Amino acid sequence: MTALPEGAAVRVNVPGSSANLGPGFDAIGLALGVWDSYDVVVEGDALVIDVTGESADEVPRDASHLVHRCLASGLARLGVDVPAGLHLVCRNGVPHSRGLGSSATAVVAGYAAATALVDLARGGEGAVDLDLVNQLAGEHEGHPDNSSASVYGGMTLSWSTRPPAMAPVRTVQVEVHPDVVPVVLVPDLTLSTSTARSVLPQQVPLKHAALNSARAALLVEAVSRRPELLLDATVEWLHQEQRREAYPASMRLLDQLRELGHAAVVSGAGPTVLVLTTADRVGEVRALPLPQGWRSATPGIPTVGVSAVRLGVSRGAPPV
Amino acid sequence: MTALPEGAAVRVNVPGSSANLGPGFDAIGLALGVWDSYDVVVEGDALVIDVTGESADEVPRDASHLVHRCLASGLARLGVDVPAGLHLVCRNGVPHSRGLGSSATAVVAGYAAATALVDLARGGEGAVDLDLVNQLAGEHEGHPDNSSASVYGGMTLSWSTRPPAMAPVRTVQVEVHPDVVPVVLVPDLTLSTSTARSVLPQQVPLKHAALNSARAALLVEAVSRRPELLLDATVEWLHQEQRREAYPASMRLLDQLRELGHAAVVSGAGPTVLVLTTADRVGEVRALPLPQGWRSATPGIPTVGVSAVRLGVSRGAPPV
Repeated sequence: MTALPEGAAVRVNVPGSSANLGPGFDAIGLALGVWDSYDVVVEGDALVIDVTGESADEVPRDASHLVHRCLASGLARLGVDVPAGLHLVCRNGVPHSRGLGSSATAVVAGYAAATALVDLARGGEGAVDLDLVNQLAGEHEGHPDNSSASVYGGMTLSWSTRPPAMAPVRTVQVEVHPDVVPVVLVPDLTLSTSTARSVLPQQVPLKHAALNSARAALLVEAVSRRPELLLDATVEWLHQEQRREAYPASMRLLDQLRELGHAAVVSGAGPTVLVLTTADRVGEVRALPLPQGWRSATPGIPTVGVSAVRLGVSRGAPPV
Repeated sequence: MTALPEGAAVRVNVPGSSANLGPGFDAIGLALGVWDSYDVVVEGDALVIDVTGESADEVPRDASHLVHRCLASGLARLGVDVPAGLHLVCRNGVPHSRGLGSSATAVVAGYAAATALVDLARGGEGAVDLDLVNQLAGEHEGHPDNSSASVYGGMTLSWSTRPPAMAPVRTVQVEVHPDVVPVVLVPDLTLSTSTARSVLPQQVPLKHAALNSARAALLVEAVSRRPELLLDATVEWLHQEQRREAYPASMRLLDQLRELGHAAVVSGAGPTVLVLTTADRVGEVRALPLPQGWRSATPGIPTVGVSAVRLGVSRGAPPV
């Protein structure tokens, strides 16, 4: 098989995520119950992309669209031709450039759609090959923290078995204590990951590396078994303070929250602030006054990640 | 109360430990079933120290003895005079300068004896104030990895709530999966911790700090729930390779073991090598040929740490 049949169609749902959680820099991710949904339909003789939802006006409608790029890359990896005719319908639920893993959702969705479409074409039900998607998405992103959470759901810890090369990526899901509740505080301003990344010093004191490592270890213990230690477990030395000037409002909010005993961290490369609180304190966190332009949400932690369902599409009748 | 009564006497038992376990540099400790035992008796009008066992010929017999120094420091902290007459009997089971935490056992024993003797003098049964001992020992050592394991037993993860100051120290015990078995490979050569420490570069790449943090997080997950990941979970970037020239034979052995799939790490500042294996592979590890002068042991992991019992000593009749 080297081509997908006309009419093959899947709907891919993928959750956004928060990365780092403080000391778990580039390694730990937490899936959040905010979703992108993509329909991918093999039809016609050209690429047609429809986008609604978050940042709909800002993403390209051609082959440079991130989902399409990863779909094409995934198909190539599987030895399958990229169809000339494709209809991609994007319903963006994950805000862009806020530190909620929207690029990872697109990357994961593209690779997931590739594996699902190939499975369909081989007579399957459109199953996603999660481990392959995790691998390809981790390689594409260069750091698997967000993508692994979007692939598997829950809290994930990822590493490469041949660092500094990203491949092969390995991921474990870390059990999340049922009392742990994430609250996200999202500003109406954006920050690109590459901008945030460029301000980090490339050398750090050994002492800070050791302190950070201890808190990363504690984070696993706290999230899974001792939520009362989340405040201590989310102290980190590698990225937040170093990027203060890139997201001053986020850091002011973070400082205020931590001063009050809440385990606040910068979500990914910011500017969203994530608070890892417990069921008994959610109301307290949500009642705190936010700066102008900020909103809070309690999205929950999906225990599964990306999935695909086969769409019953007759030729030429895409589900728009 | 400002003085201990003549005849007050306790026996303190304290386990040795391995520190770091790879990525848990200066933070993670594992108690090992190899014990020091100390009797401390308030009697006479001078300090008398008897030592048998490991390195008996190399430790001082005066007030500079580490157990006595910490006993005196602990009594001072508790507002109690240091008695002029003391008989200290040391049965050293933990090898010295091998990376098995012998200085931490002495420090913990000294502080534990202080709290037990004060408890005795106040009418108690000679209970050890574990949290106070953990605090004082962590401060004395400057890194609480070994001392916390000796205080509480099991696997410990320690951090300071006001870094870089060591105090106050907080410690959690991390559950150890019942399949995890430590094997120690101990050479007949010694290495001082301060020598080992002096060769570490004080700046490290950010990338290494991040990679190391991820493995420290994985170490908690692997030790407590997924022993099959111990090989990946014991990779580290901060100290072992940097000290290769300080313990070349240890690193050769470690490389061989890891090549065979065994989770070998340098124990503390070396030169002992610790293998975190599983019940089904212990025989395989113990059957590996060791270099001349090395011996292996399977000491087990004590689930409790330092303890004290009141000794029934009549005045002038110490239990030698």
